Amino acid sequence: MTDEREPIRVGVLGARGRMGLEVCKAVDAAEDLELVAMVDQGDWLFNASDAGAQVLVDFTTPDVVMDNLHYAVDQGINVVVGTTGFTEQRLDRVRGWLSHKPGVGVLIAPNFGIGAVLMMQFAERAARFFESVEIVEQHHPRKLDAPSGTASHTARRIAEARAAAGCGPMPDATKESLAGARGAEIDGVRVHAVRASGLVAHQEVLFGTEGETLTIRHDSLDRVSFMPGVLLAVRSIMSRPGLTIGLDALLD
Amino acid sequence: MTDEREPIRVGVLGARGRMGLEVCKAVDAAEDLELVAMVDQGDWLFNASDAGAQVLVDFTTPDVVMDNLHYAVDQGINVVVGTTGFTEQRLDRVRGWLSHKPGVGVLIAPNFGIGAVLMMQFAERAARFFESVEIVEQHHPRKLDAPSGTASHTARRIAEARAAAGCGPMPDATKESLAGARGAEIDGVRVHAVRASGLVAHQEVLFGTEGETLTIRHDSLDRVSFMPGVLLAVRSIMSRPGLTIGLDALLD
Amino acid sequence: MTDEREPIRVGVLGARGRMGLEVCKAVDAAEDLELVAMVDQGDWLFNASDAGAQVLVDFTTPDVVMDNLHYAVDQGINVVVGTTGFTEQRLDRVRGWLSHKPGVGVLIAPNFGIGAVLMMQFAERAARFFESVEIVEQHHPRKLDAPSGTASHTARRIAEARAAAGCGPMPDATKESLAGARGAEIDGVRVHAVRASGLVAHQEVLFGTEGETLTIRHDSLDRVSFMPGVLLAVRSIMSRPGLTIGLDALLD
Amino acid sequence: MTDEREPIRVGVLGARGRMGLEVCKAVDAAEDLELVAMVDQGDWLFNASDAGAQVLVDFTTPDVVMDNLHYAVDQGINVVVGTTGFTEQRLDRVRGWLSHKPGVGVLIAPNFGIGAVLMMQFAERAARFFESVEIVEQHHPRKLDAPSGTASHTARRIAEARAAAGCGPMPDATKESLAGARGAEIDGVRVHAVRASGLVAHQEVLFGTEGETLTIRHDSLDRVSFMPGVLLAVRSIMSRPGLTIGLDALLD
Repeated sequence: MTDEREPIRVGVLGARGRMGLEVCKAVDAAEDLELVAMVDQGDWLFNASDAGAQVLVDFTTPDVVMDNLHYAVDQGINVVVGTTGFTEQRLDRVRGWLSHKPGVGVLIAPNFGIGAVLMMQFAERAARFFESVEIVEQHHPRKLDAPSGTASHTARRIAEARAAAGCGPMPDATKESLAGARGAEIDGVRVHAVRASGLVAHQEVLFGTEGETLTIRHDSLDRVSFMPGVLLAVRSIMSRPGLTIGLDALLD
Repeated sequence: MTDEREPIRVGVLGARGRMGLEVCKAVDAAEDLELVAMVDQGDWLFNASDAGAQVLVDFTTPDVVMDNLHYAVDQGINVVVGTTGFTEQRLDRVRGWLSHKPGVGVLIAPNFGIGAVLMMQFAERAARFFESVEIVEQHHPRKLDAPSGTASHTARRIAEARAAAGCGPMPDATKESLAGARGAEIDGVRVHAVRASGLVAHQEVLFGTEGETLTIRHDSLDRVSFMPGVLLAVRSIMSRPGLTIGLDALLD
Repeated sequence: MTDEREPIRVGVLGARGRMGLEVCKAVDAAEDLELVAMVDQGDWLFNASDAGAQVLVDFTTPDVVMDNLHYAVDQGINVVVGTTGFTEQRLDRVRGWLSHKPGVGVLIAPNFGIGAVLMMQFAERAARFFESVEIVEQHHPRKLDAPSGTASHTARRIAEARAAAGCGPMPDATKESLAGARGAEIDGVRVHAVRASGLVAHQEVLFGTEGETLTIRHDSLDRVSFMPGVLLAVRSIMSRPGLTIGLDALLD
Repeated sequence: MTDEREPIRVGVLGARGRMGLEVCKAVDAAEDLELVAMVDQGDWLFNASDAGAQVLVDFTTPDVVMDNLHYAVDQGINVVVGTTGFTEQRLDRVRGWLSHKPGVGVLIAPNFGIGAVLMMQFAERAARFFESVEIVEQHHPRKLDAPSGTASHTARRIAEARAAAGCGPMPDATKESLAGARGAEIDGVRVHAVRASGLVAHQEVLFGTEGETLTIRHDSLDRVSFMPGVLLAVRSIMSRPGLTIGLDALLD
């Protein structure tokens, strides 16, 4: 007896971009998925619907993603979105479109790295059990912002978890400090940003209580590492109608 | 207005042992707990019940712990147990005693280090999302067994989680290997044990998928690190009748 | 006044191989070097001498490297060799050729990664000051041998340094050990080999004495990391007549 | 035939302090050393000379150390000093005393941790070979200064080595930075100070060039780790007349 399930038909928007290309390769290599459309600037979006796509993956740009989403939802096609720039306002518009199409699912995620998402979940979960926590993120020296968005986001989630559990301020007897030595403070959590040639994208969250430390470290070397997250989203979205924000919900 | 909750009355069995002494100090220092009895070899166990202990903490030895437990349950006193040597048979006897005392709670935990328990929980949870996982544990050179019990236990939980998720074997093209280079294998998970002066008790669980790794590391430097876990158990056990195994349940 | 030094004229043998291509790019990008010949299978070797190459870089194969070296030395051209497979016998033949050409320099190095070479130097130097030392190397799962050549080489250098300083055996009380848990033993130094997706090429040398540890870690992510070592060799070889083995001598 | 060398007779000044006590224990445990005098506040310093001490170890306080040194040098006794507070002026006075006693040796070291001293030596040596370097030091939250003296000292030695080798500024494209995120700057080297419960005293020096990183890490858990350095100094000082600053010279 064979597995009679049909492969999921997938279209990729932004198919010639760096992420889009990786998605095309990953979908193509997956036995349970079928790549039915590759769409980029200059192509017609309805090629994707004509090809019978059941899920679209969108790695385009903030200026076209809303049109793509509107069209896809309207056509009853599920969408997995990695494009950035989603404000609360934009999310509300997407929710509005989806309210008319109760069977359609849209997942919008700022980060498809399962490792990074787990790092943040674990950090949030560990937060209330330790007196201290600091974040050290390390990136290549071509990065423009410090600290990284992931580090800031992690700090905020940790701070919220600590506040919710009633944790007090962390112990710190520092009296004399050279400016900057103790890092940046994000909602009370210290974040240090290292920049050096030879690094790619790394983050360490260090928790400590008298006598022990727990460290959660994520090293990301290549965008290929986002593909398992993208494929997980593609496989999950058909059974998750409505709007889902972030990969977290899919990892439970 | 003051907090009118009465402190929990706690007795410590094995109070002159290394762990017992730490527990006495920790209970004594906690505002919501009151140390009412310190019992060790040669002392009468009923001193603890006479003193009105509501929770007993037992860090004794395998040959006396069952008598202690039987007595405490019989007297309706909750017990937190860090003593080792619990077989399935012993656990069944404890369950039997508790069946006659529906209000009494007993928690038996092999490890009160919250960091270590979280490390294992996170490892189990991450297991199904990565192609590869290996464990490197590092201890002082006076340790008699290799790998450590915690490492073996972590490996087994990871292996179970991978099996449940239908993960296949990990990739490994090793053709030529010096004996021992690839570590010990526990249910398909490789475990490496480092022994060196200057180390105390450390463990690293390394997960990897093409392009990224996630590392969970625990460093334990002092048995004082077990105290938050013991106190958490003491505070929780009065509202957890029946038998609880491990600290995990208390961390959710 | 300008820097009137002429650039060094460099030819690359094995120019279409993975390493050769990187060398061509690196030489081309360096202001003080001029790429005058790219030679590979099917090309005539005398193209390089005709082009006036002062230094040849050889990343070819064991079956042609000796002919290349013989020719170059005969022509009075210095050579930097990254090709593998040099036995003591082969080195003796090279020394023989060089004895007739006192002005010519040949450098043969098994590893052009300056980081890796420094890691080994530092490890050798630290060896006699610590009671314990172990090596953990971590590589991608497509690697065929375990432990890596670099790890074995490091272990041997550490063992020699300890022996020369009269260090005794390392402390290790292990009584019960699962097969492989304590790693492979190379001249008394334990070496552990981790293999996991997401890793590239990493090595950690851990030294310990009661109360402290010193760890030297090298992470290699890309063969581009060998280029600074190759260029250092190219720039140094013209003033180092005779045979030089390894990058070490150039780093002092 | 037996080893006929007489043990070195050692006196300890500040013998009841935390470091002094450790030194007494360590000297007592060493077969080639004999503890002949333990001197502290209220004791007569000449007890040490009367007892025939050949080497004095001084872990006292800045207000008495100069008198101790003057007396010892005058008596022709070698001294190993771990007491802090030595200015250039004080060192000059010591040099003056020693000029009249050409056979006497004094070693003054800010740090007797061999691991820490090697870390700084290695960092200095690696400095010129990498484009980037940053320091992350991690300490317990009771520490008053940030960054640590060792981190500042390491940064300065790295900066000097880079300057001497003509290294340019490190690459760093940071445009938007939260205050403090990029750490403190010491002579152009970024230093980050982490403070958390559960930590003791740790430092990581990270070097990077495109494609590779080299990390040197030191973990210090206990002041017992300074004893091998103190004993090395005691054994070396009798054959090192004059003033020696720092442990470095003894490690070559």
